[in-house]
Amino acid sequence: MNNKNNSRRSFIKNTSLAGAFGLSIPSLVSTAFAAEKSGKKVRIQKDDVILFQGDSITDSGRRKEELNPNVASAFGNGYALIAASELLHRGADKNLKVYNKGISGNKVYQLAERWQKDCLDLKPTVVSIHIGVNDFWHTLTSKYTGTIKTYKDDYTALLNRTKEQLPEVQFIIGEPFAVTGIKSVDEKWYPAFNDYRAAAREIANQFDAVFIPYQTVFDKAQQTAPGVYWTHDGVHPSLAGARLMAEAWLQTVKV
Amino acid sequence: MNNKNNSRRSFIKNTSLAGAFGLSIPSLVSTAFAAEKSGKKVRIQKDDVILFQGDSITDSGRRKEELNPNVASAFGNGYALIAASELLHRGADKNLKVYNKGISGNKVYQLAERWQKDCLDLKPTVVSIHIGVNDFWHTLTSKYTGTIKTYKDDYTALLNRTKEQLPEVQFIIGEPFAVTGIKSVDEKWYPAFNDYRAAAREIANQFDAVFIPYQTVFDKAQQTAPGVYWTHDGVHPSLAGARLMAEAWLQTVKV
Repeated sequence: MNNKNNSRRSFIKNTSLAGAFGLSIPSLVSTAFAAEKSGKKVRIQKDDVILFQGDSITDSGRRKEELNPNVASAFGNGYALIAASELLHRGADKNLKVYNKGISGNKVYQLAERWQKDCLDLKPTVVSIHIGVNDFWHTLTSKYTGTIKTYKDDYTALLNRTKEQLPEVQFIIGEPFAVTGIKSVDEKWYPAFNDYRAAAREIANQFDAVFIPYQTVFDKAQQTAPGVYWTHDGVHPSLAGARLMAEAWLQTVKV
Repeated sequence: MNNKNNSRRSFIKNTSLAGAFGLSIPSLVSTAFAAEKSGKKVRIQKDDVILFQGDSITDSGRRKEELNPNVASAFGNGYALIAASELLHRGADKNLKVYNKGISGNKVYQLAERWQKDCLDLKPTVVSIHIGVNDFWHTLTSKYTGTIKTYKDDYTALLNRTKEQLPEVQFIIGEPFAVTGIKSVDEKWYPAFNDYRAAAREIANQFDAVFIPYQTVFDKAQQTAPGVYWTHDGVHPSLAGARLMAEAWLQTVKV
């Protein structure tokens, strides 16, 4: 039995198992996580307050005037909405409060500027952060002068500050990702951008956070459809890409 | 071994199986479908064009200027977005086109008025319709004079017209639902509203459509959290409720 047959068989097996539950094929996302050594998950508990933070990918057109938790319009139409809806559905008996406070264009220092209001005041028990693409990208497009050291130092300071105020907080850190060859993302991104990915992973380890390997997830997704199917500009996920991110995000929690 | 232990054990079994895939507990929605005799599903095929139609529940704040398929902002932030994202994710190799053309406040006759542009011109192969709550509700609130006969006749005419233009089309019909005792929904709704639910089911049978028993889904969801958790006004789903609807919708297709 050759490897091709082997993997074909296991693909079919996964498909039919997933089909039996009427749910999505988990194998693609699972294999992206297989390389993560810790296998750590955040256990969602009663009365948890879960905060999504980040840039435009997290923002996704959310209505910023809506301050209440668990309200669809406050989530926009990206991965945070999809993941939050599933959190609230699966944790219906847990009195969860879920917020999205991502803002388009943000880099780490801009999170820091609004962190008191948009994180600490909400007293989250779980903080999910996906930040870093602009910290690099804007050096190419907007004369931003921050370096990889700025990113690391600012990110570390932000998490230290959070831990001081909220000692019990658990972090979920999403890897900055890009899909090469699509619109905004070309060879000028490399190898520099890879350092931001590595830094996010390093910081996740340092703070005992769960790490979401989004780059691997998007790389593997291209086995089923070309990169442009998952992101129209190399940076922002499509509707299919948003579901891909949400599925990866949901792998990091136990509800 | 008594029944209580039995069901407890099977609950735990379902949970852990679902957990193994990092996905939601399907048992609640599955049991809602267990009463449906046909067990029919729509098999999603290559090049399918899938259209979501309905009222505010389907609309969910979608950006109406966006005419392209598969674009998140064109889906708003309700069940249609969540279901579409999963369709596109699971059917990544199928070249699907998915549209949402729901409009807030619509009754059947208003679908008919815009059906050429917002359905027939798109040449859908799968048409999902969720309509009826306003056909009843507006008789209480807006002096609408349509009756249950208007609803049945208009709905039947709409589907006949669709079949004539698109003989191969497959219909998915969602049951109009309401959660009693919450804000907009009181005893004045009954028994009259039940006739709209029954009519939608009857029409689904008549057109060999897959029927989504949303009322049963929302009734059963109250085993895990009170009605107001799933809908803030008795009619419009919350974020958790949107996921509940999407999960039910996804049970009707095989991708």
